[in-house]
Amino acid sequence: MRLFNKKGSKKAGLAPGTLIHVGERKIDNVRIRLIDYDEKRIEEREIKSINECLPYMEKESVTWINIDGLHDIGTISDIGKVFNLHPLVLEDIVNTEQRPKMEDFEDYLFIVLKMIHYRSDMHQVQSEQLSLILCKNAVISFQERAGDIFEPVRERLRKAKGRIRKMGPDYLIYTLMDVVVDNYFVVLENMGERVTELEESLVTDPEPNILQSIHEFKRELILLRRYIWPLRELISSLERKETGLINEKTTIFFRDVYDHTIQVIDTVETYRDIVSGMMDLFLSSVSNRMNEVMKVLTVIATIFIPLTFIAGIYGMNFEYMPELGWHWGYFTALILMLAIGVLMVIWFKRKRFL
Amino acid sequence: MRLFNKKGSKKAGLAPGTLIHVGERKIDNVRIRLIDYDEKRIEEREIKSINECLPYMEKESVTWINIDGLHDIGTISDIGKVFNLHPLVLEDIVNTEQRPKMEDFEDYLFIVLKMIHYRSDMHQVQSEQLSLILCKNAVISFQERAGDIFEPVRERLRKAKGRIRKMGPDYLIYTLMDVVVDNYFVVLENMGERVTELEESLVTDPEPNILQSIHEFKRELILLRRYIWPLRELISSLERKETGLINEKTTIFFRDVYDHTIQVIDTVETYRDIVSGMMDLFLSSVSNRMNEVMKVLTVIATIFIPLTFIAGIYGMNFEYMPELGWHWGYFTALILMLAIGVLMVIWFKRKRFL
Amino acid sequence: MRLFNKKGSKKAGLAPGTLIHVGERKIDNVRIRLIDYDEKRIEEREIKSINECLPYMEKESVTWINIDGLHDIGTISDIGKVFNLHPLVLEDIVNTEQRPKMEDFEDYLFIVLKMIHYRSDMHQVQSEQLSLILCKNAVISFQERAGDIFEPVRERLRKAKGRIRKMGPDYLIYTLMDVVVDNYFVVLENMGERVTELEESLVTDPEPNILQSIHEFKRELILLRRYIWPLRELISSLERKETGLINEKTTIFFRDVYDHTIQVIDTVETYRDIVSGMMDLFLSSVSNRMNEVMKVLTVIATIFIPLTFIAGIYGMNFEYMPELGWHWGYFTALILMLAIGVLMVIWFKRKRFL
Amino acid sequence: MRLFNKKGSKKAGLAPGTLIHVGERKIDNVRIRLIDYDEKRIEEREIKSINECLPYMEKESVTWINIDGLHDIGTISDIGKVFNLHPLVLEDIVNTEQRPKMEDFEDYLFIVLKMIHYRSDMHQVQSEQLSLILCKNAVISFQERAGDIFEPVRERLRKAKGRIRKMGPDYLIYTLMDVVVDNYFVVLENMGERVTELEESLVTDPEPNILQSIHEFKRELILLRRYIWPLRELISSLERKETGLINEKTTIFFRDVYDHTIQVIDTVETYRDIVSGMMDLFLSSVSNRMNEVMKVLTVIATIFIPLTFIAGIYGMNFEYMPELGWHWGYFTALILMLAIGVLMVIWFKRKRFL
Amino acid sequence: MRLFNKKGSKKAGLAPGTLIHVGERKIDNVRIRLIDYDEKRIEEREIKSINECLPYMEKESVTWINIDGLHDIGTISDIGKVFNLHPLVLEDIVNTEQRPKMEDFEDYLFIVLKMIHYRSDMHQVQSEQLSLILCKNAVISFQERAGDIFEPVRERLRKAKGRIRKMGPDYLIYTLMDVVVDNYFVVLENMGERVTELEESLVTDPEPNILQSIHEFKRELILLRRYIWPLRELISSLERKETGLINEKTTIFFRDVYDHTIQVIDTVETYRDIVSGMMDLFLSSVSNRMNEVMKVLTVIATIFIPLTFIAGIYGMNFEYMPELGWHWGYFTALILMLAIGVLMVIWFKRKRFL
Repeated sequence: MRLFNKKGSKKAGLAPGTLIHVGERKIDNVRIRLIDYDEKRIEEREIKSINECLPYMEKESVTWINIDGLHDIGTISDIGKVFNLHPLVLEDIVNTEQRPKMEDFEDYLFIVLKMIHYRSDMHQVQSEQLSLILCKNAVISFQERAGDIFEPVRERLRKAKGRIRKMGPDYLIYTLMDVVVDNYFVVLENMGERVTELEESLVTDPEPNILQSIHEFKRELILLRRYIWPLRELISSLERKETGLINEKTTIFFRDVYDHTIQVIDTVETYRDIVSGMMDLFLSSVSNRMNEVMKVLTVIATIFIPLTFIAGIYGMNFEYMPELGWHWGYFTALILMLAIGVLMVIWFKRKRFL
Repeated sequence: MRLFNKKGSKKAGLAPGTLIHVGERKIDNVRIRLIDYDEKRIEEREIKSINECLPYMEKESVTWINIDGLHDIGTISDIGKVFNLHPLVLEDIVNTEQRPKMEDFEDYLFIVLKMIHYRSDMHQVQSEQLSLILCKNAVISFQERAGDIFEPVRERLRKAKGRIRKMGPDYLIYTLMDVVVDNYFVVLENMGERVTELEESLVTDPEPNILQSIHEFKRELILLRRYIWPLRELISSLERKETGLINEKTTIFFRDVYDHTIQVIDTVETYRDIVSGMMDLFLSSVSNRMNEVMKVLTVIATIFIPLTFIAGIYGMNFEYMPELGWHWGYFTALILMLAIGVLMVIWFKRKRFL
Repeated sequence: MRLFNKKGSKKAGLAPGTLIHVGERKIDNVRIRLIDYDEKRIEEREIKSINECLPYMEKESVTWINIDGLHDIGTISDIGKVFNLHPLVLEDIVNTEQRPKMEDFEDYLFIVLKMIHYRSDMHQVQSEQLSLILCKNAVISFQERAGDIFEPVRERLRKAKGRIRKMGPDYLIYTLMDVVVDNYFVVLENMGERVTELEESLVTDPEPNILQSIHEFKRELILLRRYIWPLRELISSLERKETGLINEKTTIFFRDVYDHTIQVIDTVETYRDIVSGMMDLFLSSVSNRMNEVMKVLTVIATIFIPLTFIAGIYGMNFEYMPELGWHWGYFTALILMLAIGVLMVIWFKRKRFL
Repeated sequence: MRLFNKKGSKKAGLAPGTLIHVGERKIDNVRIRLIDYDEKRIEEREIKSINECLPYMEKESVTWINIDGLHDIGTISDIGKVFNLHPLVLEDIVNTEQRPKMEDFEDYLFIVLKMIHYRSDMHQVQSEQLSLILCKNAVISFQERAGDIFEPVRERLRKAKGRIRKMGPDYLIYTLMDVVVDNYFVVLENMGERVTELEESLVTDPEPNILQSIHEFKRELILLRRYIWPLRELISSLERKETGLINEKTTIFFRDVYDHTIQVIDTVETYRDIVSGMMDLFLSSVSNRMNEVMKVLTVIATIFIPLTFIAGIYGMNFEYMPELGWHWGYFTALILMLAIGVLMVIWFKRKRFL
Repeated sequence: MRLFNKKGSKKAGLAPGTLIHVGERKIDNVRIRLIDYDEKRIEEREIKSINECLPYMEKESVTWINIDGLHDIGTISDIGKVFNLHPLVLEDIVNTEQRPKMEDFEDYLFIVLKMIHYRSDMHQVQSEQLSLILCKNAVISFQERAGDIFEPVRERLRKAKGRIRKMGPDYLIYTLMDVVVDNYFVVLENMGERVTELEESLVTDPEPNILQSIHEFKRELILLRRYIWPLRELISSLERKETGLINEKTTIFFRDVYDHTIQVIDTVETYRDIVSGMMDLFLSSVSNRMNEVMKVLTVIATIFIPLTFIAGIYGMNFEYMPELGWHWGYFTALILMLAIGVLMVIWFKRKRFL
């Protein structure tokens, strides 16, 4: 995950409401898809200009407009005019550095979420911003790129599975948020596998570069928390029926998403605790191992040092050294050395140095 | 305890309310047991189909339906229809990855708990999900497998011990929750023994693999907290009589369970504190011990190094080395070495290096 | 302090309200003492059966019944009948694993406290459970064993010192709680002396076993907190006059006890902070000291190693080694060695290795 | 960032409301600039005495008075008289040690903020105090020195860009605060670059002085938090429309600044987490590396010590040492040494010491 | 700062309201000073008996009675009778172990504060207890010893500086508290200098005893927090005008003191953060330095060990060692040793061991 977007500061000093796209350009052309449905019929089409959706607005049916790509300021600003959105909302939509949040403008709700994706090959979490607008009978969703995460929802709409076609736009927005949160579980599962992987490496092969891996994993968790914690409050305020745009029958579904969010937060916190413990464990097991090595080596050195000293004594060239003349002197010296060596090993063993 | 259930993500993208069993299949056949009682009579039977319980529903007596095994989606969904349960409730019952929670649907209360079990041989905590439904005159309990934890409750019902037969389904649900929480104490006692065991190992035999054991124990505590913390709020809201399904006379009993829960949480936190301290203590006692070893060994080496040097000097082959010709030269050298050795030991002692 | 009472789990599965004594049996025979007083007279006697106190109940005077010893389930259950106490209250009185708490049963208040005692010889905190019942004109206190902590209160009652004889049972219960909390200060003072003792040991004689002592002291503090933190909320709710059994004139006294409790908590937290710091300090001072030792020893070894090498060179047996034939060769070699040694010491000093 | 301003204490004992300039004098002369505007016209001039602004006060148009330099007590006190400011407000304006805060005096709002600036060359955060007064139709801003941070706002006013000329003084004050908070992002971006820089140094070249750099960076973050955390509450209370001086239409803009502030706080906390992790990582990678060095060196020493011992044995001068006379004795000895050396290397490899 | 006052426990078991002086006796004789003033006149005198102040009580003017020295129980108890103070208040006044607090007795307010003083020579914080009573038209202040901290206030009263003579006793009490809090800044400045001093020592001369100094400084901060944190709530409740004794016009001044208190708390927390960081930094820089030393020394030893081994080989006394007879054998050996030495240095450099 990027720590900070370089272009974030180019906004300083500009008038509020000035539209500037902050973030990578992840798609070539902006694509607008429209789905209009009620219990009986469904119509799905791709539109070129936002004005094509005007006739749908007057009907009672639910309209879902999905925009992929945020870099075309003109299109976004047109949508703003058509749906009478506050300039600050448009500014937030095109600035992909937003924190998840919910804002109630009486006529419409503005929700910002983060969709996340775990790249197992790089062990990195990648994120994409999703902005949702809930009006009286329409939902507008803005994504950074065309993704297939909402395809199952479209499929359910087309096949009229479950209750989705019978409910209003509030249920549609719940469905979209539910899909996003369900996706967090997929990411957490992948990360959970990574945790297990790291734990196993700790036991089987505590290499120094595992430290770097643990640090990077910890960093991803730190950044991930920033996307997930604000969700708690966001969904909780939707569930508390504080807004007129959400039907009372739908709040129970938001309570369900809320439960899932709490579970996601719990899991992230658990991972953090476990990963912290792993870091400590790794450090101490490495240091334990090192001590083991040092100890054995030092013991060997220590045993030979006195022996070498004895050899040194009988290597001296004094003219009068009686032992040198003895016939069994050499063997006595060898036996003496052996005895000293054995005694030291016994003493070390008894002192539990070995 | 498992960190995360692999199958958790298979739900992403499905319509809410779709029933999918998430978790291990711990039993072969689903088993439904029914107990119907009032102050005067008790009837106990095993039923095949949930429809057999319909006649009991119309009576004033309390009915307790216990389902063992969650993998048979058909049975669960039948129960949902008979008792008019919300699809999200059914979804939660069969997904064993739930967090403990309580939800009030006016007509009925839905409670999710975790039953835990400590396997002393593996020093592992294992968990099973318990879902409870409290209706006007019935309690439905869903377990993952047939267990004997509720056998004493059945015994009390049969023998009409205590007040249980005189009270309503709210008292039955309290009894079940009380049994679950009392069971936590059994687990905590086992874990407390493990703490004492680990502490004693620290003092008597600080082996490196104790570190791994402490880490694993810590991990179990982290996961255990996830099951126990939410209980606090859950039971507290039951006690605050926020729902019409709980009789005022029963709330005092929930207060008692609440006290026990706080005690359980307190104990878990105390264990965590103590285990953290143990980890620090182990690390520093190992490093202390290592230092001790290194010190003694280094001192030995250091004493012999100057002595070996002196031996080396008199081992040189210079033609003119006056000392070599002295008659007592050899003994003088030996005495010199002894003196230096003794002086160094004294100096080390004084400097408290030994 | 014990971590956990072994017998705690024997209750699992029993009906709530079943009386089982959990804890050590600290006294042989249960002893019941009764004091009945008003402003003018005081009567003090020991009774055999709880029924003897019935006549006092009808009088306006304040009756204080003190029970020492909890293992006699029969006596406790008789008291329950006489004073019409809830079965759960009796259960809590005989289970000495309670957390401090206060429960309001309209007719009476039930308070559980912990009396603590510091055994300086073992540096251990020992605890005893005190249960208090406040009725309209009586106070019943249950202790695990006969103790003299309340003797000064009896003395004040007998001598009609202060306002105690003029006030009601709420003031008596305040007095008892005040004595308990004042006693905490005595314990904290002893523990404070231990902190100072440990700190001084750190400076004068940092032995490895001090680590164990610090760990044990920390453990006592962890367990002590469990007894003291709940007091805060307990007394605060008494002070807020939430119950009709406490006279408004007495609440100001509870505010005083509350202040003392906060002070006790503050002190315990301060000890924890200081003891944590001590552990760090000890570890680093030991490692500092060790480093010091290693450094000196290593320096000695390092100086002699090149010198020994030079001696080794002139100990070689090559036939043609011109230096060996020089008349001053030996002395030159000695001077060379000395010079190298001195230069190394100077270099080490300059590099601040020494 | 300075830890504490030396002159802060010269105020002790003075009457409250006594004006004393606390802080560096960052500018030579006080400079007062006045901008008066409404939707149709704008007037901009520099004034010498505050009295020159009196005529503007009676008009409906918005007046923005900007004072650069706080050391001239006379001028500040004149402004206090003209606008009828409370003596404590004036005291706070000239004391640059203020914490960010907002005070509501019914007739006017008093806001204190910190403008920050990151000096990349010194890796230091520098701060300047900004005091704002919002009256019915005027805004007064006090800066420590003339800065160009508000120049874009003046430009927008002159060119009537955006809605600024159509709105009241509350929108002007929002614009100024927005510019200040946007500036925080610039600082955070620079600090983010520093974080990346430090992280890269960790991997490529873990020099000891990086520790000092991390410590200094951490210290800057600690001090930065002090300026940013109070903003959260400050702006939140502006947004909650608790004051009559802020138009309801403007509160939505304050909500936007509030979001940005939360983002700033989030980022600072994320940096703190990452930098803490870096410190741990550095320490352990240094110690890892050190261990690596020590291990290789010790292994070399350990291999040669037994070999040198063997050489020592055959260097002894015993008269009767049979091996010495053997023709192949020398080569046998050399081969023996080689064999021992190779065996030790193999053993070390197998034991994973190498 | 003392950890705990030895005499604190002598109170256990006494009746509440019993006056016992707890703390050091810091002054010989109790001294009572009285200042009576209104806008027009001021009278200042020293009195022997508290009864002399009775006539002033009946007047509308503000009376300030200051008592230096708390050990004379008689005097304190007389004051209690004259002003009708609650026995618990008197008990708290003479017990200098109080926590800062505020109590509202409708007729009067009772405030306990701590005055602190930093002894730069011992780097220790010393404290003195200040009790304040605010009645309808009088302020009574109790200090442990005669101090000059309130002299500037007396001076302001005498010279009628600022608004002090025009305001009531609530403003006087604000002034006294303001002086106490302003004094905290003086202490914090001195402590800030100590922080800078310690930080500089860390860089220039990281001696082991700096660890002890950091530990002691940390300890002072721990104890200081206990005096400062309760102030926050205390002053906040004064500012919220919860009592009738404080005029609404004065609350704004309490808000000012509140701001200062928050700043004091902020600074103490910042110091704690920085000092914690310093401890880590010191430990790691010491260990870094130690590693540096060990590394250089080990490298020297390691280079010479193989060389000494070669010298050992040619020091062996085998009869048949062809190299010994070579004419250039000695020089070849020397060159070989040099080559090996140089190669090892190069290898070490390349491996970055040097």
